Amino acid sequence: MRMYDIIKKKRDNEELTTQEIDYFVENYTNNTIPDYQVAALFMAIFLNKMNRRETLDLTKAMINSGDSVNLSKINGKKVDKHSTGGVGDTTTLILGPMIAACNVPFVKMSGRGLGHTGGTLDKLESIKNFKVELSTEKFIKNANKINISLCSQTANITPADKKFYALRDVTATVDNLSLIASSIMSKKLAIGTDAIILDVKVGSGAFMKNIDDALKLAEEMVNIGLGYGRETIALVTNMDEPLGNAIGNALEVKEAIQTLKGHGPKDLYELCLQLGSKLLLLAGRVQSKDDALSLLRNTIRSNSAYEKLIELVKYQDGDISYIENPDLLPKANHIIKVKSEKKGYVKSLNAEEIGKAALTLGAGRITMDSVIDLSAGIVLNKKVDDKVDIGDTLAYIHSNDIDKAMDVKSDIERLYIIGDKNKETKKLIYGLITKDGIELY
Amino acid sequence: MRMYDIIKKKRDNEELTTQEIDYFVENYTNNTIPDYQVAALFMAIFLNKMNRRETLDLTKAMINSGDSVNLSKINGKKVDKHSTGGVGDTTTLILGPMIAACNVPFVKMSGRGLGHTGGTLDKLESIKNFKVELSTEKFIKNANKINISLCSQTANITPADKKFYALRDVTATVDNLSLIASSIMSKKLAIGTDAIILDVKVGSGAFMKNIDDALKLAEEMVNIGLGYGRETIALVTNMDEPLGNAIGNALEVKEAIQTLKGHGPKDLYELCLQLGSKLLLLAGRVQSKDDALSLLRNTIRSNSAYEKLIELVKYQDGDISYIENPDLLPKANHIIKVKSEKKGYVKSLNAEEIGKAALTLGAGRITMDSVIDLSAGIVLNKKVDDKVDIGDTLAYIHSNDIDKAMDVKSDIERLYIIGDKNKETKKLIYGLITKDGIELY
Repeated sequence: MRMYDIIKKKRDNEELTTQEIDYFVENYTNNTIPDYQVAALFMAIFLNKMNRRETLDLTKAMINSGDSVNLSKINGKKVDKHSTGGVGDTTTLILGPMIAACNVPFVKMSGRGLGHTGGTLDKLESIKNFKVELSTEKFIKNANKINISLCSQTANITPADKKFYALRDVTATVDNLSLIASSIMSKKLAIGTDAIILDVKVGSGAFMKNIDDALKLAEEMVNIGLGYGRETIALVTNMDEPLGNAIGNALEVKEAIQTLKGHGPKDLYELCLQLGSKLLLLAGRVQSKDDALSLLRNTIRSNSAYEKLIELVKYQDGDISYIENPDLLPKANHIIKVKSEKKGYVKSLNAEEIGKAALTLGAGRITMDSVIDLSAGIVLNKKVDDKVDIGDTLAYIHSNDIDKAMDVKSDIERLYIIGDKNKETKKLIYGLITKDGIELY
Repeated sequence: MRMYDIIKKKRDNEELTTQEIDYFVENYTNNTIPDYQVAALFMAIFLNKMNRRETLDLTKAMINSGDSVNLSKINGKKVDKHSTGGVGDTTTLILGPMIAACNVPFVKMSGRGLGHTGGTLDKLESIKNFKVELSTEKFIKNANKINISLCSQTANITPADKKFYALRDVTATVDNLSLIASSIMSKKLAIGTDAIILDVKVGSGAFMKNIDDALKLAEEMVNIGLGYGRETIALVTNMDEPLGNAIGNALEVKEAIQTLKGHGPKDLYELCLQLGSKLLLLAGRVQSKDDALSLLRNTIRSNSAYEKLIELVKYQDGDISYIENPDLLPKANHIIKVKSEKKGYVKSLNAEEIGKAALTLGAGRITMDSVIDLSAGIVLNKKVDDKVDIGDTLAYIHSNDIDKAMDVKSDIERLYIIGDKNKETKKLIYGLITKDGIELY
């Protein structure tokens, strides 16, 4: 087999065989095939597309390029949730304890990424001594004891994906459905959970800017999951404005605690209920959505989800006093109010731009070497459709750098678009994708 | 300007600006842009195409990547002929002296290439002491004295093309009209001749396998030449079977001498007359095609073209006794007859396969380091449409290696397709492309 012929075939819009896909993934990972040949192939894939069979084979080959994590020793039907990335998305820290409190094992191994804020692992590191690096043995043991375990990937998961992504990033071949879906799903599927719910974000703060594209991506990913023999569903959800109110690591932990105590932002809690009810149905824990929702709401009412977070922190060596008293979490030196100079309704609040503002404050990573300021971030006081008077506080900036805070202040003032009430109220969820097809909300 | 944005633009089927094309050609030549980015761009160009303006700009940028050769000190309207490459194509050694004998300067700087047989320079090296490396001063001086000069490129001509070609060759991005045309034309146009005739070959032995593609390539190249301000025309000619009878370096020199003496193969001589008449018209040497043809025929009848070859050899330090007595040219140890086992007419004779057979015998280069056996090759005794009896000699194999010769013998036996007379007799020329459009023959 020759890489030249594989490039030529895809260039000529022909279907690649399983063997051809295995060949280039394996040999690129081994450094046997040079970057420039894979760059040409990626552009051919970008322009001529891959069909579902090829995309599934690509995903499998990427999984096979590295290690898989066998979780069969975890009792029961283990579930995981994956978000394609948004701004202020702290659902894992709320949904995880809620699901675990329903006696369904919620397990998640994450990588660290670039972005507006840190990932779940960074957020958890706001809690003193919280250990995000667990051996697989310890990970499984915790899951069996308390039904929840969240840790970093230590194994050599999908090395092909790392090389692919670095190359796609500099050759304008990122935005292809098959390449995006296989990249996300290979990392998920290499970890042996039984059921996965995908939260596919759409809007200004998401990778996918329009609903059609998001639905297509969700469909593609669900198909890959199902094709790989895993129960997989997806929700397509709104990321036009940030989710919840907090954007920033310690700020989001605090918000997660508030939500588990029943005082969280409405949209964030609602999304956790929606994702959670699908997961409980998928895990066979309940038979109806109503049962699922009442079970989930009860984990908040009874405080059992909050207790589960305490347990999680305890089992991963964290200091639970940080949960019991969130004021102990890292705090910024300055909190600056952003006030409204206008009267009306919030028409829009660009999530991507708010994310960039948080990044400017140090809440996220620009490069993999960036050091995150866990205390920095933004707390929104007004969101889309809210009524605003002149002088009302729109948001709070948490920063250790007053100059950066002042820059961000004028950005936020600009980002709050205030005017007449929107004709349609915002939607939280656009659609559900299961093995039976797409259901639009 | 960023290479990423240039790739993205072409990926999205947008037109690249002159500045963008200049940027990537210059910076790739400088090694500032990595191979993988150019590989992705080439695949995007391959699939989304370049328009004529972009192709002309690409050609100009490639010319500007290196040196140009100023030939303005050559008196009169200097002409050049370029073939896109065929099997047994020794026209330059015949056409050049014919044109020069008509008092029109015929000048040509060639690179050495890979192929079935060597190029013009290799063929000339069959002549003892013939010097193919001339300084530009000497090249110009000879042209002014005897109207003919043929030498190798010593200047740093189109370094971008060398890098481009090497990359295209391994990324399946060779067969694109804009990339092919700009590659050929940049090398031609970097040499400052006044008028160029392109001999675009089509058929089994050519790069272009069908007439439509060849016409398109010819049109593209003529457009580039004209756009660059050079008089340029093209003939699309038959390369379904080899041109003339000889395939091999010394063998082709011998055939060229025979042709200049009036005893050459009909197709080869006819093609020289057709190309030559266009060149004389282009150079303004004559006013009509009939005048051109009678002038050219007279160079053969009067022996003046043959004398011009003698002069050329003398001016480039070659031993003219090799021309006067072609038996001195390198000769193979073995000459093996290939006889017909069938009776009928030659229906076809695949030029590419005959070329490969010559390559097997050592007549050409497989890699740039290959050493050519100047004596090796094939002489055809029967060509398409010829009548054949059982036992007739089809061809002669000239080889220094009897094992290789025997392999080639069975190949040639297989390649002569003998049967009923073809319904249509073969055509030599399919069309003429000038600034006024395409004229089909």
